[in-house]
Amino acid sequence: MTWSPEPVAVIIGTGLIGASIGCALTESGYRVHLRDRTMSHARVAASLGAGTVDPPVDAEVQLVIVAVPPATIADVVVQSLETYQRATVTDVGSVKAGVLHAVWSREVDLARYVGSHPMAGSQHSGPVTAYAGLFTDRTWVITPHRRSAPESVQRVADLVQACQARAVVMDVDDHDAAVARVSHLPHLLSVLMAGHLTTVADGDLLLAGQGLRDVTRIAAGDPALWEQILGANSAAVLGELRGLRDELGRLIDAVEAGPASAAPLRDQLERGVRGTRKIPGKHGSAPIDYQQVIVAIPDAPGALARLFVDVDAAGVNVEDISIEHDQAREVGYLALSVAPEGAPELISTMHGRGWSVS
Amino acid sequence: MTWSPEPVAVIIGTGLIGASIGCALTESGYRVHLRDRTMSHARVAASLGAGTVDPPVDAEVQLVIVAVPPATIADVVVQSLETYQRATVTDVGSVKAGVLHAVWSREVDLARYVGSHPMAGSQHSGPVTAYAGLFTDRTWVITPHRRSAPESVQRVADLVQACQARAVVMDVDDHDAAVARVSHLPHLLSVLMAGHLTTVADGDLLLAGQGLRDVTRIAAGDPALWEQILGANSAAVLGELRGLRDELGRLIDAVEAGPASAAPLRDQLERGVRGTRKIPGKHGSAPIDYQQVIVAIPDAPGALARLFVDVDAAGVNVEDISIEHDQAREVGYLALSVAPEGAPELISTMHGRGWSVS
Repeated sequence: MTWSPEPVAVIIGTGLIGASIGCALTESGYRVHLRDRTMSHARVAASLGAGTVDPPVDAEVQLVIVAVPPATIADVVVQSLETYQRATVTDVGSVKAGVLHAVWSREVDLARYVGSHPMAGSQHSGPVTAYAGLFTDRTWVITPHRRSAPESVQRVADLVQACQARAVVMDVDDHDAAVARVSHLPHLLSVLMAGHLTTVADGDLLLAGQGLRDVTRIAAGDPALWEQILGANSAAVLGELRGLRDELGRLIDAVEAGPASAAPLRDQLERGVRGTRKIPGKHGSAPIDYQQVIVAIPDAPGALARLFVDVDAAGVNVEDISIEHDQAREVGYLALSVAPEGAPELISTMHGRGWSVS
Repeated sequence: MTWSPEPVAVIIGTGLIGASIGCALTESGYRVHLRDRTMSHARVAASLGAGTVDPPVDAEVQLVIVAVPPATIADVVVQSLETYQRATVTDVGSVKAGVLHAVWSREVDLARYVGSHPMAGSQHSGPVTAYAGLFTDRTWVITPHRRSAPESVQRVADLVQACQARAVVMDVDDHDAAVARVSHLPHLLSVLMAGHLTTVADGDLLLAGQGLRDVTRIAAGDPALWEQILGANSAAVLGELRGLRDELGRLIDAVEAGPASAAPLRDQLERGVRGTRKIPGKHGSAPIDYQQVIVAIPDAPGALARLFVDVDAAGVNVEDISIEHDQAREVGYLALSVAPEGAPELISTMHGRGWSVS
């Protein structure tokens, strides 16, 4: 038989990630078939342009993307290799070694399996917030193993390109060690801080500011999902947690040393500042020091609209927006993050149009 | 002599907090005199409407606000009580007991001193981002002591009211214990996580997402300032750090127990979710579950402006804005937080005007 004129993909699991991949592949000219244990999810994804819920001709399928919860990934990968005999199968789970070990001993054609992990997501789950641009400029890790066929690795690289993400090839163990450091450890620290709040009196929490909200935001993530992720990466996570326990011990020593010997505490605070500067920019590119332009916004009807008309007039690309001091009544102010070279133009335009800018 | 027709205040230290208080008091009809060791700061604050840099008639001053760095607060409070013989003196430092102890034994009229602490700020320091609305609806703690005159406490309460903040009266030690829990501990956790990143390879940091950025944001705060704050509250901070070390130990045990016994880990993850729900809303009011309305924004010139024109047309108050997946090129999406009762109107208006909304 011959391949159909357009590449044919099957996506199993139509949550935010699966449905967004469907949208991106559809826009890139793939024919995408959606499957989900919860049929309504697949239908919502289809209505957003992620593909069709009609079943494919199994032998025509070239690419299968397994986007199901961590605990079921290995089984679905094995079933997919059996069902779609000519397809490359990838999964998009956050931990890679366990899946590889689980499928390694099964009687399937592992040359057609290559794991991967797009570094994108949201606190929103489910397909309703899916969109094709979710992966644009994000890192997407590809984790080949020694039995992967080069053709299969290429098909996954094509998938990454179709989603406009940036492919990074890593060994499964290196990948899992990296996510333990930059994703799983921060999640657990956030959980620790948030969990500690359950012991704090409500009156004391009246004193909470934005810093506490930021540190604890991700702790609101789904415990069932995180239990699976952490369980699948427990060795690497334990190593990081133990390292952090040692660092916490040193911090306690530094605070205990007191003002007579402030140097150790100051060192730790400065080390923290250096750490924040190591984090790359939002798109996985080198860290960019965006400049914030702060504009006071009167909380009057139409104020935001007028403000953005004037921001657009400056012709400067706004990288991020936040309301720095959100005020229900009085004045608030809007922080616009722009590349440093764009800031003077934006400031001068906004000044010229009567806004209070700093 | 008689008081001047308008109340007269002196603000010492014209950083973000001092200058913003100046703006709020000026708008409320106070005559405000600004003092700063760095004269250019006072001049910038004056140009923003925070007051005048002209010196006051000392005996006319009714209220002095000390808004200098923590290490110098006590001395400036004592000098202010001596210089302005009829004035109530307050400070706005983040830690209260140390200042009170330092001034307690001095030969000054402590009936006129009442500490306070506005729970507002920003990662921006200095006067340039100051504005009168900084304190609106924020908690402002007042910490009287047993020698405070009722009249002095009332003057500080008037200050809080003039700034449209919400007064909460607390004992100094209770205040310091509370900020150790909800401000100083999260700061140090953020510093720990950010500091840990200095040991992580650059390649691994390509996998960093928004969660890591949120957890580490406040670790970028000024080490010199934080060294003073933490030093001034070291006993309470140490208690919290030791409690957290125990909780970290239990978390390590839970991860070590592994999938055979996932209950302890699941319990800790769920405890974290409960902790995030205890944090009050932005204005110190009861937690509000804002609903997020997500709108896809094409990254075309004028898109944001058109979008906000249509958001305004819905007549719904937008509490917070974020670009959830900031895309330099393709499509991004904007998350608009609104009160739940406003969401249907906003969604229907945006749908009707052709936006992709979820």
